[in-house]
Amino acid sequence: MCELLGMSANVPTDICFSFAGLMQRGGCTGPHKDGFGIVFYEGKGIRGFRDYQPSADSDIARFVRDYPLKSQIVISHIRQANRGGICLENTHPFNRELWGRYWTFAHNGQLKGIKKLALTDMLPVGTTDSEHAFCWMLSQIRQRFPKPPRDNMTLWRFVQGLADQLAELGVFNMLLSDSKDLVAYCGKRLSWITRKAPFGDASLIDDDMQVDFGSETTPNDIVTIIATRPLTDNEQWNIMQRGEMRVFRQGILER
Amino acid sequence: MCELLGMSANVPTDICFSFAGLMQRGGCTGPHKDGFGIVFYEGKGIRGFRDYQPSADSDIARFVRDYPLKSQIVISHIRQANRGGICLENTHPFNRELWGRYWTFAHNGQLKGIKKLALTDMLPVGTTDSEHAFCWMLSQIRQRFPKPPRDNMTLWRFVQGLADQLAELGVFNMLLSDSKDLVAYCGKRLSWITRKAPFGDASLIDDDMQVDFGSETTPNDIVTIIATRPLTDNEQWNIMQRGEMRVFRQGILER
Repeated sequence: MCELLGMSANVPTDICFSFAGLMQRGGCTGPHKDGFGIVFYEGKGIRGFRDYQPSADSDIARFVRDYPLKSQIVISHIRQANRGGICLENTHPFNRELWGRYWTFAHNGQLKGIKKLALTDMLPVGTTDSEHAFCWMLSQIRQRFPKPPRDNMTLWRFVQGLADQLAELGVFNMLLSDSKDLVAYCGKRLSWITRKAPFGDASLIDDDMQVDFGSETTPNDIVTIIATRPLTDNEQWNIMQRGEMRVFRQGILER
Repeated sequence: MCELLGMSANVPTDICFSFAGLMQRGGCTGPHKDGFGIVFYEGKGIRGFRDYQPSADSDIARFVRDYPLKSQIVISHIRQANRGGICLENTHPFNRELWGRYWTFAHNGQLKGIKKLALTDMLPVGTTDSEHAFCWMLSQIRQRFPKPPRDNMTLWRFVQGLADQLAELGVFNMLLSDSKDLVAYCGKRLSWITRKAPFGDASLIDDDMQVDFGSETTPNDIVTIIATRPLTDNEQWNIMQRGEMRVFRQGILER
């Protein structure tokens, strides 16, 4: 299994604290030693960092941890390879453009027989099940909605159906963004927490690190963090159920 | 005008030396203060770094300069904005997937009326002329070649025709890669140099920096650098002519 990390916020927020916890799972407190990737949205643009070094040893991961990039949507993934070699093109998150928006996708799990699902115009570059699943989803979305539906919830209802189909092939935990919303689909294990005023302290499970969010935020900030397993041990996380999908916009649970 | 920098090599090579020269032009020895971007191919994968800070002041640019990422194809760009605001989604190089390959595109110049060229499935995320031109080129390529032609030179002859059309709209200096070849099209100003054994010294025009390539390379290395203007003052660069297009594979001039 890989580890997923996502963030949705109503103001540009750095993810240094949560990422510091996640990267320790990449070869240090966890076995996910086959690379990591992180994508930050800034406006409509995206900024990605990826490495196939274990994240606990990676200079690029250290740069990301120490450099406070601020973003309203972040998707990150650390990998324990099961299908597809350890190389850059197999490193999540994956990106594609659809409707003039950058989409970002990260997945953990295996999907048996995924490569039998036919692809049309969007093709994978690497050899992972995950990228194939992403290309298939986007092809289906484009076919169903040549133009974006007026209400994004129409889109997400359709995506829930696609995710349910994929989840039948094995384990499908997913983080997805169309640059507006952050979507979390739980096939087996995923949890989330929304932090807002009054902010408290949080202490990481995987690193000897504490943060007082009260001193780093304003009273209007709303920040949701999604992770495979809770990252802190003194806060109440929402543990998602199999087949549950959640949509966050600006840090707020929309669906 | 912006500045372009490209590299094609037969072994994974770092571009630190040339990039050190280029980044000085971003707000220090040159006026190109509206951001920079660089894309490295590693196998079929890509790794991009972008910032809309002037490259001379950018922490991300410093990280790239000091961290010896090795690659066989690199495309970089520093920007002096003329069309499109200063933001991440308008920062070159741009990437799209076609035929299961990542394509990378950077441009300098302006293209009058480019937005009248209709786009079908590939759409720009930002508002630059350049990204519109890239999406148009890829749409044309996909329409003409639903599958990749057996000989890449068939592809590049077609691309030369597209580039000639774009160059009629204004200034069109371009670096393009399909992950196999690096293509340089000169609309007004572009130069290149191939370095191979016996390697000599080189000294940067824009920074007080010298390198002895002989001590950093093996006798079999072949490395071509393409830049808007020559980066060194003690080597013989090839100055390209208007309408000239060159294709490099593994550092070697193919066309």
